[in-house]
Amino acid sequence: MVYLTKKMTFSASHRIYNPNLSEEENLKLFKKCSNKNGHGHNFVLEVTICGETNPLTGYLIDLKELKEIININVIDKLDHSNLNYDIDFFQNVIPTSENIALFVWQALENKIPNAKLYKIKIAESETSAVEYFGN
Amino acid sequence: MVYLTKKMTFSASHRIYNPNLSEEENLKLFKKCSNKNGHGHNFVLEVTICGETNPLTGYLIDLKELKEIININVIDKLDHSNLNYDIDFFQNVIPTSENIALFVWQALENKIPNAKLYKIKIAESETSAVEYFGN
Amino acid sequence: MVYLTKKMTFSASHRIYNPNLSEEENLKLFKKCSNKNGHGHNFVLEVTICGETNPLTGYLIDLKELKEIININVIDKLDHSNLNYDIDFFQNVIPTSENIALFVWQALENKIPNAKLYKIKIAESETSAVEYFGN
Amino acid sequence: MVYLTKKMTFSASHRIYNPNLSEEENLKLFKKCSNKNGHGHNFVLEVTICGETNPLTGYLIDLKELKEIININVIDKLDHSNLNYDIDFFQNVIPTSENIALFVWQALENKIPNAKLYKIKIAESETSAVEYFGN
Amino acid sequence: MVYLTKKMTFSASHRIYNPNLSEEENLKLFKKCSNKNGHGHNFVLEVTICGETNPLTGYLIDLKELKEIININVIDKLDHSNLNYDIDFFQNVIPTSENIALFVWQALENKIPNAKLYKIKIAESETSAVEYFGN
Amino acid sequence: MVYLTKKMTFSASHRIYNPNLSEEENLKLFKKCSNKNGHGHNFVLEVTICGETNPLTGYLIDLKELKEIININVIDKLDHSNLNYDIDFFQNVIPTSENIALFVWQALENKIPNAKLYKIKIAESETSAVEYFGN
Repeated sequence: MVYLTKKMTFSASHRIYNPNLSEEENLKLFKKCSNKNGHGHNFVLEVTICGETNPLTGYLIDLKELKEIININVIDKLDHSNLNYDIDFFQNVIPTSENIALFVWQALENKIPNAKLYKIKIAESETSAVEYFGN
Repeated sequence: MVYLTKKMTFSASHRIYNPNLSEEENLKLFKKCSNKNGHGHNFVLEVTICGETNPLTGYLIDLKELKEIININVIDKLDHSNLNYDIDFFQNVIPTSENIALFVWQALENKIPNAKLYKIKIAESETSAVEYFGN
Repeated sequence: MVYLTKKMTFSASHRIYNPNLSEEENLKLFKKCSNKNGHGHNFVLEVTICGETNPLTGYLIDLKELKEIININVIDKLDHSNLNYDIDFFQNVIPTSENIALFVWQALENKIPNAKLYKIKIAESETSAVEYFGN
Repeated sequence: MVYLTKKMTFSASHRIYNPNLSEEENLKLFKKCSNKNGHGHNFVLEVTICGETNPLTGYLIDLKELKEIININVIDKLDHSNLNYDIDFFQNVIPTSENIALFVWQALENKIPNAKLYKIKIAESETSAVEYFGN
Repeated sequence: MVYLTKKMTFSASHRIYNPNLSEEENLKLFKKCSNKNGHGHNFVLEVTICGETNPLTGYLIDLKELKEIININVIDKLDHSNLNYDIDFFQNVIPTSENIALFVWQALENKIPNAKLYKIKIAESETSAVEYFGN
Repeated sequence: MVYLTKKMTFSASHRIYNPNLSEEENLKLFKKCSNKNGHGHNFVLEVTICGETNPLTGYLIDLKELKEIININVIDKLDHSNLNYDIDFFQNVIPTSENIALFVWQALENKIPNAKLYKIKIAESETSAVEYFGN
């Protein structure tokens, strides 16, 4: 059993905002993270999968194949987007790192051939990160 | 003569968009960087100043003082902002890294006591950076 | 269940020295790490907590709140200190990374509202790190 | 119980090539990674061990001792080598990161006094890594 | 006048070997860097260009265009290659970082529209780098 | 003409303290950086030299030779030291990064065969650095 991690980045904007609260309540709760016109980050995504090494290739999975799966299901959708406006999932879910990790998990679960999705890690800055293991 | 560099970060969103061109022309020219709802980055700013070391302190300038000057004049304005909507300078100037460097230079020039502003460096990703020396 | 990690740094000096041993025994055991006048590091601390995301905020905890808790209980005490002379805990405990991790665990346990302390990581250089899970 | 990680690097060349397949099959399967004359990497190795802190020293193990064990058993063999030609283990095993992790595990197992080998991590680039826990 | 730097990487193997010297002289001069079957690195290349910002775009040059020029002229040739065997330039030139910088300069000079090539930086490890300014 | 940079680190403690001022004046001027028992850093030193590539070796200088010169003249003296107490140079000079750069310049000037010392860079944290070019 080996674990393989692929790191990728996407640049997106978001506003931390709960539509069930007033503008005042949002600003009190989230402060500058709830500024009206949003802000943005270079999000760093790490996808970790696990499984058995294939003796034919010496790989758990070819990294180019894993990269393509993550590109199609996650990066092409999130990169250079405004998470609040452009991504359906965040119409009813606040686009925090915690919830972005949930989005990526759901987007990749059962999409990796011959391997199991193990962990999603999202860092919106160099000094913080969220990890999600699927339950 | 010594050179002192202070690195700081700010998170902002922007849209690369020239208001003198049509939507179609902008998308053709800037592609996903001109997506309608914008995107964002963790911008890394490096401010380099130069001057003589003060024999009383052994410092060119106290880093805490330099940090406060950069916070007041730059970071407090740009952090968690939407550059296109929230910053006057970018009403008539496209908010590329090249032009953000120009904005920071103008914001800090002649603001550093006993030292000369030497270089502004702006990196909007880990793989690219712009440097501006003031002319 | 999500895991949230906050990275912070503190600069401190220490001397690896066991007061129950002679000077000669200390130098033989710890070599230059036991030099009489001490040395120092930029220690990198990573605090990982775990718990449920709050649906009101989309956060496990607001990072600004977590940062303040770590500042008050750890950073304000250790930063710019001499661990051997300035910190009570290290009067009877050798200030190695292993024991600094133990100190931080005890300083933060039961201090994080609505979340559980999961891991303390201390790196005294870019090439080594200690992790402690509380038992 | 504490976990201690030591990071070291080695520079080596390799060719991803399965000798049981034809040249054409190798190139189709591995593409440029199977180029005839090989290519190379700065491999980053992280060795994690676990055990009890020794109250005499405050250490799980002295990092200088751990570094020497890794140097003798791993780095001196792999650094500045061609994995395919110079290392016996890779005569019958494809030198992927997955299999390099296996090699390092076998080279270090039962070699660390008073501690248990916990994890081997191999990164052949800044954007990918393999982790192996020994079974 | 602004300076723009693009960072890219390539993985290659090489052997530091002067064909005008004997095997013994090479090993004495270059030690393990001259091991017979070669070794390898993740080389980090930074290309810096300079020029005037285009008021139509706010760019010195579109980074996607610069990346494509570097890919076609440098990365596609060097990545996953054995520098000694696969690259004509290194048939008569020892493939050190100093000479790789020279190769990249010659490959990119006069290839960047509306900008001047300013600097080539090559790092074969995280602790060393060569810079070349074209003469 | 090529420029070669070697990065090395040393761990040291220091106290920012001007012996010509009172304790109160020192604390007012330098705040926590002047705490009585000192603090410490992992200092990152970058030494840049310049000269002509030697056609026999393809090197400006062999990095192993440059590393040995820096070790003998700088690292062996400063690593695991208390700069204020252990280093003669800092008996009359405040051990700020500005002055450490000056110390390193004087320690290395005219010590590099066939090359010219070009720049000394000292970073006492990841967010600040001092550069000195020798006059």
